[in-house]
Amino acid sequence: MAKLKDLKHSQEIIESYLQDDLDQELSPAELARHLRHVHKSDVDLFIDYVKQLSSESLGDVAIELPDHILKDVIEEISPEQLKDAIEELESDDATDLLQNIEDINEEKAQELFDSLDDEYQEDIKRLRRYDDEEAGAYMQTEVFVAKVEEKISDAIARLKQMKEEGEIENIYRLFVVDDYETLRFSIPLEDLITSDFSLTFKALVEKAPEDEYQPIFARDDDTIDSVIETVENYDLSVVPVIDYQGRLVGRITADDIHDIIQENATEQIYNLAGVNDEAEEENTLFEAGKSRAMWLFLNLFTAIVASLVIGIFDETIQAYVALAVLMPIVASMGGNAGTQTLTVTVRQLALGDIDFQNAKSTIVKEVSIAGINGVIFALVMGAIAFLWFHEAMLGVVIGLSMVINLLCAGLFGALIPLTLKRLDIDPAVGSTVLLTTVTDVVGFFSFLGLAQWILLG
Amino acid sequence: MAKLKDLKHSQEIIESYLQDDLDQELSPAELARHLRHVHKSDVDLFIDYVKQLSSESLGDVAIELPDHILKDVIEEISPEQLKDAIEELESDDATDLLQNIEDINEEKAQELFDSLDDEYQEDIKRLRRYDDEEAGAYMQTEVFVAKVEEKISDAIARLKQMKEEGEIENIYRLFVVDDYETLRFSIPLEDLITSDFSLTFKALVEKAPEDEYQPIFARDDDTIDSVIETVENYDLSVVPVIDYQGRLVGRITADDIHDIIQENATEQIYNLAGVNDEAEEENTLFEAGKSRAMWLFLNLFTAIVASLVIGIFDETIQAYVALAVLMPIVASMGGNAGTQTLTVTVRQLALGDIDFQNAKSTIVKEVSIAGINGVIFALVMGAIAFLWFHEAMLGVVIGLSMVINLLCAGLFGALIPLTLKRLDIDPAVGSTVLLTTVTDVVGFFSFLGLAQWILLG
Repeated sequence: MAKLKDLKHSQEIIESYLQDDLDQELSPAELARHLRHVHKSDVDLFIDYVKQLSSESLGDVAIELPDHILKDVIEEISPEQLKDAIEELESDDATDLLQNIEDINEEKAQELFDSLDDEYQEDIKRLRRYDDEEAGAYMQTEVFVAKVEEKISDAIARLKQMKEEGEIENIYRLFVVDDYETLRFSIPLEDLITSDFSLTFKALVEKAPEDEYQPIFARDDDTIDSVIETVENYDLSVVPVIDYQGRLVGRITADDIHDIIQENATEQIYNLAGVNDEAEEENTLFEAGKSRAMWLFLNLFTAIVASLVIGIFDETIQAYVALAVLMPIVASMGGNAGTQTLTVTVRQLALGDIDFQNAKSTIVKEVSIAGINGVIFALVMGAIAFLWFHEAMLGVVIGLSMVINLLCAGLFGALIPLTLKRLDIDPAVGSTVLLTTVTDVVGFFSFLGLAQWILLG
Repeated sequence: MAKLKDLKHSQEIIESYLQDDLDQELSPAELARHLRHVHKSDVDLFIDYVKQLSSESLGDVAIELPDHILKDVIEEISPEQLKDAIEELESDDATDLLQNIEDINEEKAQELFDSLDDEYQEDIKRLRRYDDEEAGAYMQTEVFVAKVEEKISDAIARLKQMKEEGEIENIYRLFVVDDYETLRFSIPLEDLITSDFSLTFKALVEKAPEDEYQPIFARDDDTIDSVIETVENYDLSVVPVIDYQGRLVGRITADDIHDIIQENATEQIYNLAGVNDEAEEENTLFEAGKSRAMWLFLNLFTAIVASLVIGIFDETIQAYVALAVLMPIVASMGGNAGTQTLTVTVRQLALGDIDFQNAKSTIVKEVSIAGINGVIFALVMGAIAFLWFHEAMLGVVIGLSMVINLLCAGLFGALIPLTLKRLDIDPAVGSTVLLTTVTDVVGFFSFLGLAQWILLG
């Protein structure tokens, strides 16, 4: 029922959109969402709608579609229409879309690429040379640029022409380069629009306070994470990107930074829970289920390791069944305290709030908090165990093992992500499983071991 | 050692900054970070540096400081210097800073507020009337605005003057209002700079394609989350904010949206792990430790509930100690599978990818994945248990309870956040504890109950 209502609603919106009959603007993301609803119930209708999209809309929508739907698009839409759609996109988006198509059908992607304008092919080739983590992979090559000696009015006339030809949009700053294409100045449009247009850029800069137009830039081989930090620190709307020789090669705009921040956050949250963000986005039961099962297998393995530890003490448990009742508490508290530490460390590493320079003070802080909480919960749980089973030494045993396990939780909760980061592995991936292995094993071993030694020793 | 090196490095940077002697620009966020390093080791030196900051820097830095450091600033810095710093800030930041000061010292905040210009007081009063979740709370009142009948050149002359007086910065768009202050058009500077300045705005708009300058806006009582969605969907650099009568009252810029996205993500990640983001930011052991202890108390309570369930079956365990060895595996697998579902649901709710309209299909999807994985792990774990303890029926018991617990994990992993959201409670807060209570109780009860019935029955 809900599905049917969804379909009807989406159908209406898409049809109004196609007839240019909507009261409100519809963003590509929203249009893609409605098209996905239609695809779920009626693939033919979906294709029919996609065929009616303008080149511009088709490109914008295509980059929003997950692989299994994009697959239908590239099979059913003519190569000419796809080529036009790609050419309407900015170079970074065009590169991404071609990459997505290549992941589905390499041959088709090559054909499409070959059909593009030479200049466009050059841009895409250049962008594809960058690694996924590099700033260059996220930039677009379309920039509003002027020469130092040029007159402001000439640059504005050029901007007007570029805009009329649909070559460029979302301009917030003009970048000024010298004869070697080296980036020299970065001038916000708000300063340009209030300036005397008959001046050269050189004259404009000389009239301004020193360093006023000194550009804040990124290198194309900087990590995208460091670019995000720069954008956030300086509240930028756009960052120019330069190559190793200082030449302006592109720009990254704030809306791309938004998307990366959101994606990074989703990836972190998912990875901490043993979920793969890309598999989830595929939106098919099989992909999501398979990737989750792989994590659960890893977890099963570590749970069995913990059980082996319990197995060592089976006779102790048979003699004292209260131990079986209480042992999950120690493991659970360790797991939770460790997850707190782990999560804070992973997130603060990602935000740049902690690094290797202050790793030691992070560890000291985390172990201190865990130690203090360990003592508190040792006293609380010791008292509860005593009142529950009327056995003072049982309280001592659970109290001691609580302190030991929470200290380990704090230590490894901080150490695991810091070590992974040092090894250049994403500290969010797999760290939760590693941590709970430690807290389960230490929790069971310390509790049952102390019990054997103190209660039965 | 690391601390000392940190201090030295920060001292050098701050001193070069104060002498205007830095090669590179230093953002307020970075300056605040170095000042925090100094504060950690030497409060007097910290105050000494802060006193030397310009009003502009002082304001920018002050909003970046955590409460316990800001406290020292407001105690040691003269009210005049603080007033100047607040007046240098944009209205939204000024409001935030005053709020932070009020949290520390209400009287001081009132004194500072009273010392501000009347116009400034009005703006702050208006912004403070908004709820934390409302768009209005995040807007600044400084906007570049023009009347429909005005000439473009007149508006640009006004912008020039406002910029010279330091009243406004980061202008990306001009907002055009009618005689009732109603927002009519939103014109990017890139279009303005390439236009004929002798035209009126009315003439400019009439020459453009229909709807070209139709504003995408937010209402001041919209939720900030919906504003974030709008900004992302339309790749905006700035959103105008209107009141219930359609009058332009302020704007929200992309850099503020960045900060909110990051903060929301941090809050979600932390809340899922039982960590309070505000307490962690305080950066004092006591605050962070206290807030974490409160979550651990809640977890202790639920762990005890799970133990009570185990306690019901103490005789069964004594008869079959293998049950004690195996039972944590069932609980652990349920907890992990449930956390996967919970995390995906929480995050997709936050990103607007799922809502109540498609809640049912989310639940169906999650239960299906959990069910399939339940069957897989039932077979795997059943076989392992059989091989380990040479008891076929033990394999059947753990297999059945695995299916039951994973189904519950999928069901409650989706239901808990959806229900919390429906009740207008943040679905990330407390949901993990609720979920693991379910998976622990169901895990232990189904496994031990089935064992009692099948093995001993």
